[in-house]
Amino acid sequence: MRGNLGIRALFMAVLLLLTMGPPVSAAPSPAGGDPLPSWREGPVKRRLLAFVAAVSTQGSRDYVPAAERLAVFDNDGTLWGEQPMYVQLAFALDRARTLVAQRPELAANPVVAAAAAGDVKAVMAQGTQGLLELVALTHGGMSTETFARIVRDWFRSACHPGLHRPYSSLTFAPMGELLELLRSRGFLTVIVSGGGSDFLRVVTEELYGVPPEQVIGSTVRTTYAVEGSVPVLLRHPEVAFIDDGAGKPVGIHTALGRRPIAAFGNSDGDFEMLEWTTAGPGARLGLILHHDDAEREFAYDRNSPFGRLDRALAAAPQRGWTVVSMRNDWERVYRLSASPCSP
Amino acid sequence: MRGNLGIRALFMAVLLLLTMGPPVSAAPSPAGGDPLPSWREGPVKRRLLAFVAAVSTQGSRDYVPAAERLAVFDNDGTLWGEQPMYVQLAFALDRARTLVAQRPELAANPVVAAAAAGDVKAVMAQGTQGLLELVALTHGGMSTETFARIVRDWFRSACHPGLHRPYSSLTFAPMGELLELLRSRGFLTVIVSGGGSDFLRVVTEELYGVPPEQVIGSTVRTTYAVEGSVPVLLRHPEVAFIDDGAGKPVGIHTALGRRPIAAFGNSDGDFEMLEWTTAGPGARLGLILHHDDAEREFAYDRNSPFGRLDRALAAAPQRGWTVVSMRNDWERVYRLSASPCSP
Repeated sequence: MRGNLGIRALFMAVLLLLTMGPPVSAAPSPAGGDPLPSWREGPVKRRLLAFVAAVSTQGSRDYVPAAERLAVFDNDGTLWGEQPMYVQLAFALDRARTLVAQRPELAANPVVAAAAAGDVKAVMAQGTQGLLELVALTHGGMSTETFARIVRDWFRSACHPGLHRPYSSLTFAPMGELLELLRSRGFLTVIVSGGGSDFLRVVTEELYGVPPEQVIGSTVRTTYAVEGSVPVLLRHPEVAFIDDGAGKPVGIHTALGRRPIAAFGNSDGDFEMLEWTTAGPGARLGLILHHDDAEREFAYDRNSPFGRLDRALAAAPQRGWTVVSMRNDWERVYRLSASPCSP
Repeated sequence: MRGNLGIRALFMAVLLLLTMGPPVSAAPSPAGGDPLPSWREGPVKRRLLAFVAAVSTQGSRDYVPAAERLAVFDNDGTLWGEQPMYVQLAFALDRARTLVAQRPELAANPVVAAAAAGDVKAVMAQGTQGLLELVALTHGGMSTETFARIVRDWFRSACHPGLHRPYSSLTFAPMGELLELLRSRGFLTVIVSGGGSDFLRVVTEELYGVPPEQVIGSTVRTTYAVEGSVPVLLRHPEVAFIDDGAGKPVGIHTALGRRPIAAFGNSDGDFEMLEWTTAGPGARLGLILHHDDAEREFAYDRNSPFGRLDRALAAAPQRGWTVVSMRNDWERVYRLSASPCSP
């Protein structure tokens, strides 16, 4: 009897140890398998794994306390695709078409007319001012709750024109694995996007396991009001903050008050975020994803209207930033778990 | 031998169970003791404990998933004292004195002269515009890192004039217990202050266990620059966002993208935060701390220049907000773990 109790207790103790999760100093993959199966073996993958192990293994020369393990990720072109146009721009075009159908006089504005017609080139030809006007019309003039509902509905029905898949299934599998690896090693993984935070927050939890409070993005001017007896937050047709380029370090500081130790981007809009991140003391990681895979995704860099990559690519060797070749370093590109759709 | 091993294994299993922390559905206090010993028994304490248990106990009618358990806390007058003036204003006066000693011509501005002389009444007489000018001078015109160093140094040397204790020891013990209780029950506890986020972030981790990314506050305009080859964030002498009154729901939404389920404040500056929080669906908690304890702290409300409480107190019964009487509901006021100092 006593012996049986002993064995049972021992068994329980072992079971408890197993269910408690790995200690902080364990190897990157808890199960001993490859935590990054969608990444091909090579120097880039080795660099990623070595960095993660170095900063999160107690006793390591480059050890960083968990509270300071902050990693920031650009979204468009880094976590999901941005061709033939930003996902949020596709949303704006669809929204413009809906609004113009309701109020045809809106088409008097050339950028709105171009958007409603789905003519991306004509939209882009209107320049930054035109884009701001389009955002104001399609993203402002409603409460935050109404906007979230419209975005949620759009994601349910929208379909990528070339790839015939819902946008929500077009995230990059290797980056999803990286997010998970970092979180399993105590990192806070924060999205820092030029896109709108209220747009992205509708889907980041489902797509990336990133909750709304870990999303930093561009904003429209927002004010508080009580309508009848119902408090609401009103989105005004006016851009308040552009979280791109030199705005990214500012956005990160305002929201988090810390400098990241790792930054992941794919365009010149991520230059300052990488620069600021990798200029800090201790071990740092800056990574640039180069879209050089015309077969499986798209091949573009310095001449692309979306995700232009020129200055950051040129600076990478001297700055010690890791350049990822999608063609060579990724075994798999898309997560692609959904059925095809028709646009 | 076998018997001894059995007892040791059983002992280990029990030890492991004890060190694993309580399961989510356990009673509020892990050790079975009182999680709020600085709160006196009574309806307020019962209400607090009942709310926490209701939203965090699986199977409860009012159960809220952990990801949505967001509680927001005002700081001045809620987590620490605000009399005879806001702590950050005391910092601004000391800083003005230092700056005027270096550059006497600054005293040509009456608000700066009043601040340098430590004359709070004269400072307040200059109105909002005067205060903004004082903040611009004392909080702007330097990098975020320099500012953090100045604030850190100030907290090390500054001494509350009436209480003869470092400001860092003047936090409210009952509120500290509440923060810890909420976190032990899966809540995210976020500070939402009219004070500056970069000012507070220097001390919130040490004082409240709240890391910088969980602090929302007022900001000055901040830009990114590279000085020589060193990237910096520059604080400009210009207030960008005032996180007070109707600004609080906006600040919360911008930073977190969620509506809290519990809000704690002490003044009319917290009205909209409580209103927005408690207007949401499901179980909600709005709490107002009433400073009515002239013996142990201060007694003030509608006529106070700092922490004016009038509209929120009047609205509390109808809105279902819990009013805490410091005199009656608190067994203990200050944390007060430090030795006296001299101002």
